[in-house]
Amino acid sequence: MKAKVYVTLKPSVLDPQGKAIHHSAEQLGFQQITDIRQGKYFELALDDSVSETEAREAAEKIAADVLANPVIEDYRVEIVQ
Amino acid sequence: MKAKVYVTLKPSVLDPQGKAIHHSAEQLGFQQITDIRQGKYFELALDDSVSETEAREAAEKIAADVLANPVIEDYRVEIVQ
Repeated sequence: MKAKVYVTLKPSVLDPQGKAIHHSAEQLGFQQITDIRQGKYFELALDDSVSETEAREAAEKIAADVLANPVIEDYRVEIVQ
Repeated sequence: MKAKVYVTLKPSVLDPQGKAIHHSAEQLGFQQITDIRQGKYFELALDDSVSETEAREAAEKIAADVLANPVIEDYRVEIVQ
């Protein structure tokens, strides 16, 4: 079983890295792009013996404890068979 | 309109950062997680005047030219209304 974890900065948190990418994109002529925000993406492979509920629990726990900083980041977990 | 771009290392490319995260996760007791790979995630905001086709074209182009290195990375684009 696989879990995908998406980590993004909370909307109220400034994203200087995204701003820098957006600035480069503008210089390169991508005028239709008005904003870019960067996040992180993780693919977790889980033991086949775990159930979907256990997989979601483990993925939620590692997302909150290790992969994201809940003070400034939001995360979303998706389980894939 | 929004576009989401997911960038992942190609499966044949080693991911030492993911390995380090996996190692930490094991130390913390996440025994059911057998592998972790890290990728990047971008949220692009696009001008409302562009059509879905134009938005997809722009997002695909910026993904290939700026956000991903097609030699070692794969990318996936998703358009959200």
